[in-house]
Amino acid sequence: MTNILERINQPKDLRKLNLEELNSLADEMRKAIIKKVNTTGGHMGPNLGFIEPTIALHYVFNSPVDKIVFDVSHQSYPHKMLTGRRENFTNPEKYFEISGYTNPQESEHDTFFIGHTSTSVSLSVGLAKARDLKGEKSNIIAIIGDGSLSGGEAFEGLDNAAVLNSNIIIIVNDNDMSIAPNHGGIYANLQLLKETEGKAECNFFKSMGFEYLFVKNGNNIEELINAFQKVKDIDHPVIIHLHTLKGKGLEVAEKNKESFHWILPGTLDKKEQSNSQEATYNSITTDYLIEKRMNDKTVIAISPATPGAYGFTPEFREKMGEGYTDVGICEEHAVAYASGLARNGAKPVLAIMSSFVQRTYDQLSQDLALNNSPATILVHWGAISGGDATHLGCFDIPLISNIPNIVYLAPTCKEEYLKMLDWSIEQTYYPVAIRVPFGPLISNGKKDNTDYSKLNKYKIEEEGETVAILGLGNFFHLGKTLKEELKNKLGINATLINPKFISGLDKELLESLNRNHKIVVTLEDGVKDGGFGEKIASYYGKSGIKVLNYGADKEFTDRVPIEELYKRYHLTKEQITDDIKICL
Amino acid sequence: MTNILERINQPKDLRKLNLEELNSLADEMRKAIIKKVNTTGGHMGPNLGFIEPTIALHYVFNSPVDKIVFDVSHQSYPHKMLTGRRENFTNPEKYFEISGYTNPQESEHDTFFIGHTSTSVSLSVGLAKARDLKGEKSNIIAIIGDGSLSGGEAFEGLDNAAVLNSNIIIIVNDNDMSIAPNHGGIYANLQLLKETEGKAECNFFKSMGFEYLFVKNGNNIEELINAFQKVKDIDHPVIIHLHTLKGKGLEVAEKNKESFHWILPGTLDKKEQSNSQEATYNSITTDYLIEKRMNDKTVIAISPATPGAYGFTPEFREKMGEGYTDVGICEEHAVAYASGLARNGAKPVLAIMSSFVQRTYDQLSQDLALNNSPATILVHWGAISGGDATHLGCFDIPLISNIPNIVYLAPTCKEEYLKMLDWSIEQTYYPVAIRVPFGPLISNGKKDNTDYSKLNKYKIEEEGETVAILGLGNFFHLGKTLKEELKNKLGINATLINPKFISGLDKELLESLNRNHKIVVTLEDGVKDGGFGEKIASYYGKSGIKVLNYGADKEFTDRVPIEELYKRYHLTKEQITDDIKICL
Repeated sequence: MTNILERINQPKDLRKLNLEELNSLADEMRKAIIKKVNTTGGHMGPNLGFIEPTIALHYVFNSPVDKIVFDVSHQSYPHKMLTGRRENFTNPEKYFEISGYTNPQESEHDTFFIGHTSTSVSLSVGLAKARDLKGEKSNIIAIIGDGSLSGGEAFEGLDNAAVLNSNIIIIVNDNDMSIAPNHGGIYANLQLLKETEGKAECNFFKSMGFEYLFVKNGNNIEELINAFQKVKDIDHPVIIHLHTLKGKGLEVAEKNKESFHWILPGTLDKKEQSNSQEATYNSITTDYLIEKRMNDKTVIAISPATPGAYGFTPEFREKMGEGYTDVGICEEHAVAYASGLARNGAKPVLAIMSSFVQRTYDQLSQDLALNNSPATILVHWGAISGGDATHLGCFDIPLISNIPNIVYLAPTCKEEYLKMLDWSIEQTYYPVAIRVPFGPLISNGKKDNTDYSKLNKYKIEEEGETVAILGLGNFFHLGKTLKEELKNKLGINATLINPKFISGLDKELLESLNRNHKIVVTLEDGVKDGGFGEKIASYYGKSGIKVLNYGADKEFTDRVPIEELYKRYHLTKEQITDDIKICL
Repeated sequence: MTNILERINQPKDLRKLNLEELNSLADEMRKAIIKKVNTTGGHMGPNLGFIEPTIALHYVFNSPVDKIVFDVSHQSYPHKMLTGRRENFTNPEKYFEISGYTNPQESEHDTFFIGHTSTSVSLSVGLAKARDLKGEKSNIIAIIGDGSLSGGEAFEGLDNAAVLNSNIIIIVNDNDMSIAPNHGGIYANLQLLKETEGKAECNFFKSMGFEYLFVKNGNNIEELINAFQKVKDIDHPVIIHLHTLKGKGLEVAEKNKESFHWILPGTLDKKEQSNSQEATYNSITTDYLIEKRMNDKTVIAISPATPGAYGFTPEFREKMGEGYTDVGICEEHAVAYASGLARNGAKPVLAIMSSFVQRTYDQLSQDLALNNSPATILVHWGAISGGDATHLGCFDIPLISNIPNIVYLAPTCKEEYLKMLDWSIEQTYYPVAIRVPFGPLISNGKKDNTDYSKLNKYKIEEEGETVAILGLGNFFHLGKTLKEELKNKLGINATLINPKFISGLDKELLESLNRNHKIVVTLEDGVKDGGFGEKIASYYGKSGIKVLNYGADKEFTDRVPIEELYKRYHLTKEQITDDIKICL
């Protein structure tokens, strides 16, 4: 089965193969990727579409002297297979030993840890300039997908690459898709260039000053090798525009490009796509928005790409009609757009991942908060997680809650979440961010009648004494179990508080705790540094009350199991109870 | 003198004037602007170049029903003069009553508080979409300068504007300049378009899908009115590319476009430009870099535009040669570029303003910190200030110091600063940011021999008891005067500590304070929320020690005198002493 692939231990082994063998190798790699990704889950379409370009790249260029920088790096599986990590794709026992992104700790052929989009060109301009300063010779190759081009950093990088005046080779991997269908003005130009086989006079890349080459069959190894050989050791910036097929070789992935961009384990084994009817925070959000929009045409949902992550399915988008925009991968625009919408009387709801909201701090501050534009931002996947270092969701609390004017809310159940969402959409005073609860839908069974326009009012859920637990958002439930543990182990009837507001202190309530509490415990599902708990500690700094802050340490963790992280951060009820015992 | 201008109280008054009168009005406005800006200081070149376009805009369009969004808004003085704020330019007593940027609190003709760059198009797309959702008709007009086009958010906005499918008019105010000369690939295309009077086939804007109009004489009111009338009420996106003259009508500003972008009060009255020989943090930085580079060709200074703010004068740039890049207004690229440089063995030093470093959080985190690229970031103007709400320098501490891996340093004098800078450049382990001291150069007269590779080692400057003062960076000096005050008023011999490291705790030292201190005071020249002091409070949360945190409140302040802010935030030695007295 894998008789060619198993001969490839490093890129130079490719150069011993003839074209026929290279094509067979592509077939072998394709089969291995399909099998592995269907077992482990992961990025399917982007990798299947980039097998031939990767073979041709490593055939022509001399990695790691020549440096290849993948954008997002969700298309780097073929690269990993050819650079010493073959077995992680052919031996199921080794499937989980490597990450889904480039990782310099895995291989010298991986130049950067990368997982966010639109960065490859800028990083490569830096590599190239360092090469020039050192007086060395090598090829610097940046890969960027058509979808990633819509991100501002990609444009900034291109604008600077164009005037670098030395070797930089930028490969535009154009598969006619972002994660979802492309959105934006440049895509018409990419389309025109494909239709004219690169010959159209009006050319986005040429207008920026690049030499430009078009490769019609971007999955044809021979064409690719010819193109790459033409530009190898070039002394100026060049764009190679490849037309590739996302999901190539797997019919269902070719047809369903969006849903096969990234798949769950076992997706191919299921006869039909599971169509779960179970409600989730996503489904109650989309149901709410669709209903809201029926009576109010100014309601508009926005996603900066990855609509699937928010439940913004094709059906949802259709129902929302003009009340939905996927702006493409451009979080900065998304926030400024939402601010403009709100400023002119519309009711924008922007969904964004915690890991990606950090791509737009300045717009949150200047365009949104300073203007007090009443837009709603739904922050998804905000939680300590066992995920990749590139996609951690634990930094949004310090990021958002320290910006003036933004009201950042942490609901603990669906009733609170929906009430907050509705309040936010209807009010016209504040920019509001809501940290959408992470995990399965939780109901507390009680209608929420809170008036959220009274800012920074925490809720005492159960009144007690000696120890007060502030369980924020997702960690309210940890607070509940901690309360029980304190009762059982220490005989303490602790006070349990649901702060709800991340971005402000309920000074009256905090003051009142002074009366009959010795210890205040804060629990937050994110990094402690700059977060919620430290503000509580600062507030009580002058008083005799003791404060214990719990949350994640300031560190990048990479695929560390969540149980291990909880233990590391003292986030089990037993550990916290022990800490409290010492302080009593 | 001002006989036409004084008849203009609102935009519609313009429509009573004939062309000759409009031209006379432009002359009057020009004289008033020159006089005012020379008195108050402010943006000179951008406003002088945009008088005629502003007259034409308000002549043709119907503000505030039609909405005009200025990018950066440093060219909005003529707009202010025509929208009810004339006297703030003609009556010296009212000069200081208005801000230098658009401000919705001043006028309904100002759509947004704006001061950062490259945002106008995205904001306008939001305004336009809201108009469409509401079923209204109006013109949405975004102004953007050629320099601002290099910012990624501008591109993201353009890419989305192009597919808006309804009215949006984007005016590219091309004066052949950013603040400094333009840098980037698109500028060759703008040049080509100017040379061909807009007729070149390869057109950046057309490649994005825009209809495109060129106005050759962008300071000719008649041409401008004709062009604007052509596009008024258009039903699709359009670009109008104006060729204007920065500094028009003031010879010295036309000739010295960079230095007359923004001027100090009285600049025109001086026979020669003052050429002060007094050393500053800027001058010791550039001296250091020039010398460093003589022996090490991998040293490279980077500025994301505004090089003048860092002392990166034309002479400096020339001396640095290939060891200097002004990347244009693109902070995201600047950080990723620095990361790429460091990764490939060069020694990048990126200078950036505190207010602008927030435009690149994700790159600091993903491209730089996650990759542990040993680049140096110099953060300038990080301080509580009485400046504009759009350019506050008090948010960089929470922004940078809560990102893992980055070492954020706070020197208190030139000796420490230079030692830290040299250490940072030579080490290869960490991304390092240095908060360049704000204000005049301070020497403590002692050579700094600290080994900064031993991270998070605070320095006890003077050992005492009862009260320990942690005076961070700029506020170390406040700490010194506070120590004296405590001695004089309360007879306390306080311990004075220079933390030096913003981004980590010296737990050993903090632990040792427990022995003979009751109160720890933290002083930081920035917002308290998410900052340095709160971490100290959190650290001592379990102990009996009291902690008082001082710094700015979380708020946007707009031109509030610094003394007033210090008082508001309890930052005088007398106020802090009173607070301490209560806690003793």
